[in-house]
Amino acid sequence: MGGWLRIAGLGPGAEAMVTPEVSAALAEATDVVGYVPYVERVPPRPGLTRHGSDNREEIRRAEQALQMAADGHRVVVVSSGDPGVFAMAAAVFEALEAGEPAWSSLDIQVLPGISAMLAASARVGAPLGHDFCCINLSDNLKPWALIEKRLRLAAEADFAMAFYNPRSRARPEGFGHVLQVLREACGPQRPIVFARAVSTPEESVRVTTLGEADVEMADMRTLVMVGSSQTRRLERDGQPWVYTPRSAP
Amino acid sequence: MGGWLRIAGLGPGAEAMVTPEVSAALAEATDVVGYVPYVERVPPRPGLTRHGSDNREEIRRAEQALQMAADGHRVVVVSSGDPGVFAMAAAVFEALEAGEPAWSSLDIQVLPGISAMLAASARVGAPLGHDFCCINLSDNLKPWALIEKRLRLAAEADFAMAFYNPRSRARPEGFGHVLQVLREACGPQRPIVFARAVSTPEESVRVTTLGEADVEMADMRTLVMVGSSQTRRLERDGQPWVYTPRSAP
Repeated sequence: MGGWLRIAGLGPGAEAMVTPEVSAALAEATDVVGYVPYVERVPPRPGLTRHGSDNREEIRRAEQALQMAADGHRVVVVSSGDPGVFAMAAAVFEALEAGEPAWSSLDIQVLPGISAMLAASARVGAPLGHDFCCINLSDNLKPWALIEKRLRLAAEADFAMAFYNPRSRARPEGFGHVLQVLREACGPQRPIVFARAVSTPEESVRVTTLGEADVEMADMRTLVMVGSSQTRRLERDGQPWVYTPRSAP
Repeated sequence: MGGWLRIAGLGPGAEAMVTPEVSAALAEATDVVGYVPYVERVPPRPGLTRHGSDNREEIRRAEQALQMAADGHRVVVVSSGDPGVFAMAAAVFEALEAGEPAWSSLDIQVLPGISAMLAASARVGAPLGHDFCCINLSDNLKPWALIEKRLRLAAEADFAMAFYNPRSRARPEGFGHVLQVLREACGPQRPIVFARAVSTPEESVRVTTLGEADVEMADMRTLVMVGSSQTRRLERDGQPWVYTPRSAP
């Protein structure tokens, strides 16, 4: 009965980075569903119900959103950044596949957003300007051995790298291992960028080297980037620019 | 004298995916600089000069933009998608590093955009929902051997993969080699997505397998994605959904 589901990215934080497509979906929604701090980014208004839930409840949240859309609601599932990069889109499709057969005929669209990786990269220049990879460092959903294998192969491939969720409460020592593996594989001079809460009032960005990097430079809101062997540092007043040239030898 | 340079991403094509931040910069600009079809996406208005140039002239275009900003102009360099992903941001920093010392004190900002990869991923579900890599297949700026090495290591790391510039006029046979390497490394059943001109009137999206994939399914406007070993295909009316679950064994 006219219900639909949109899985939308709110971008990294600033209103000025929310796409008009996402704003339009939110303006038409009857229900917004997501992790509490993201749902709170959508201002309350009459006719809109905001359903905030805990970080770990992704599948339950996805099921709730699918069922509301099946019941005729206009539902937006919100993620920070882009919904397709370590966010709610995969969870919704997992729930869809495992759930009610009727859900498969729902009107569903994914609306992209400015990912944390793109926002962080823009702040410091163009560290992802050449081939790169993107790895979620949380070991909640995969074994540490797989993370380490991917780090070593990414270094061998000489990718620039973007890392999400560098520090989880469940395993605070994990990021120290990551830095150790990268130092061995890439050497201590390799540039590393810690970009925290980009485009929010709490934004802070630090550019350093793997040799100088410390686990305390990252928290749960930090996006970490490591350059390839070609990545360059360009001094200016304040924080240097970091960029990876378009060509590789 | 009040000049500045913004390196902005116009997103994949639709106006509804241009961020307000980028629209505001374009509204204040005196000059827009870029590859002809991207410059033409900015409507003409009094007080705005549009400088379109050829695809291969990235460094000259970057130098022109930097010099105009140094001369007091408000300059926006436009790229399709995101400027930091195989686009103009890296070229501007290359030109900045090699160019006039006075340029280093210019007011420069990079304004992110919805990259082709994120837009294409959204159209089919969440193929990049877990660890992934992003490779420019053009061998204009790097040797083919490096591309092949990265493909093999990416497959070994079991990344999902996004590929830019699958087919260049200069080397049309390259993409056939890419498909061959991937078939060997990932097997013929692995999902592959061809997403052409997403969000434009010419959009077309096709989901198939590496075994069925053909070089003719891609052209210069196609973003290609290949799943990891975990990527799933979910049938629906029309094109199936493709997503990579959040967890990996």
